[in-house]
Amino acid sequence: MRLKVAFQGETGAYSEAAVLGYFGENISPIPNPSFEQAFTAVVSGECNFGVLPIENSLAGSIHRNYDLLLENNLHIVGEQFVRVKHCLIGLPGTTKANIKKVISHPQALAQCDHHLRALGVATEAVYDTAGSVRIVKDKCDPTLAAIASARAAQVYEMSILEEGIEDNPANYTRFLVLAREPVDPAGEAKTTLVFTLKNVAGALFKALSVFALRDIDLTKIESRPLPGSPWEYLFYIDFVGHLSDPNCARALDHLGEMATMLRVLGTYPRFHWNE
Amino acid sequence: MRLKVAFQGETGAYSEAAVLGYFGENISPIPNPSFEQAFTAVVSGECNFGVLPIENSLAGSIHRNYDLLLENNLHIVGEQFVRVKHCLIGLPGTTKANIKKVISHPQALAQCDHHLRALGVATEAVYDTAGSVRIVKDKCDPTLAAIASARAAQVYEMSILEEGIEDNPANYTRFLVLAREPVDPAGEAKTTLVFTLKNVAGALFKALSVFALRDIDLTKIESRPLPGSPWEYLFYIDFVGHLSDPNCARALDHLGEMATMLRVLGTYPRFHWNE
Repeated sequence: MRLKVAFQGETGAYSEAAVLGYFGENISPIPNPSFEQAFTAVVSGECNFGVLPIENSLAGSIHRNYDLLLENNLHIVGEQFVRVKHCLIGLPGTTKANIKKVISHPQALAQCDHHLRALGVATEAVYDTAGSVRIVKDKCDPTLAAIASARAAQVYEMSILEEGIEDNPANYTRFLVLAREPVDPAGEAKTTLVFTLKNVAGALFKALSVFALRDIDLTKIESRPLPGSPWEYLFYIDFVGHLSDPNCARALDHLGEMATMLRVLGTYPRFHWNE
Repeated sequence: MRLKVAFQGETGAYSEAAVLGYFGENISPIPNPSFEQAFTAVVSGECNFGVLPIENSLAGSIHRNYDLLLENNLHIVGEQFVRVKHCLIGLPGTTKANIKKVISHPQALAQCDHHLRALGVATEAVYDTAGSVRIVKDKCDPTLAAIASARAAQVYEMSILEEGIEDNPANYTRFLVLAREPVDPAGEAKTTLVFTLKNVAGALFKALSVFALRDIDLTKIESRPLPGSPWEYLFYIDFVGHLSDPNCARALDHLGEMATMLRVLGTYPRFHWNE
């Protein structure tokens, strides 16, 4: 039986590209309408894995998925980066000069703003990028185009009128691979933590000393105000290393001495772009 | 002549609520279709100030506006927090039981997902929250409702069918007030920095020592990978204090010794919820 991998969005979404990029073609990607439903599909055992976006280079961290990681007892077992490369997609046979209106998710429309203004077309928001391609297909209107991934064009057998129309090409999304059981990664690893600290001066500096004094590299740090508690913060940290490494395990013990809450969300193989 | 204050979105948007919350009613809020156009309106002198969102408690930081702060030579002169309280808005005379379809920005629809599923209505994405109220008004359809702020209902003379329908009430957005010239804040101040560091072990820890060793409190820290430079990061820091305070000025000088790039985006009065 093929592995089932839950993602949020429709067939042809960037999240599906992340699923296929990580697992290859011999699995079944399972679309889910919301992040929450994708988590539930893994927790319930309906799917073997979930692949959820955690940050985008232009839009920032997706706090909702950190919240769902804290609420659900799943483990991060991998990560995958996907370059977001928007395509202008229309009916087979139409041309860019025919297009009068472009539809997509508002974020995709905003990310192609310069380009769309140069084209002089009207724009209209729809629920998601892959769904916008389906709408163009259903309406069968040669003056209508969608913005989505090249894969969405392929899935719906539509034409790519132009590729890479985003204003900022440095647009990529990091996805986390989630499972009910942790993995023992071989090779270079990363570990993701969430913690809170007592509200005293220098608390964060002391917390970071547990890594700096052991020469452990951080790849991410972010503070997030706890809504309703104006002086309290959640901290998100990713560091290079596996928890089975005694140096990392001691750093975590040391952090545990000062943290008021500490959760390891996962320790997993690090992604490399040249793979 | 009234001050002109640029914001992104339509009349009735949450950003307009931030403008009015900060400046009061005796100014003219000027709507702009994009963040970029709102920046340009201030840089060109067309508007006196701009009010732009920088982070949301559920959705995270808006990196695009950090990028625009680095590209444009504007100063942060204030901050404003706005509670995001979504309302279900319909034609005057209609009731919640009549509603068959709800339209809004996809993020607002997602933030009210539980509630909308309980109502058993169809949903459709549109460009922004305030715009969805205008559409309901234009279509004059008593089975159609929008999700937006209470102010949007007031602006378009529409009925609030239900207030506070967001799944997570801890939903607020922090806005920055921008101007061409810096201000000399009285009272408690905050300072916002962007910097990069040499890619050496412990670099961030050393950078944070300039604040910790001087008992300066941080209210935000965030790393952002520099796209295209896998081992380089931008760091965003907010700290409590004004640059005219010698202790803060020395911390900044000290940080300048290690930073490969350092920009002060502003030093401005701190927002307090109980104001």
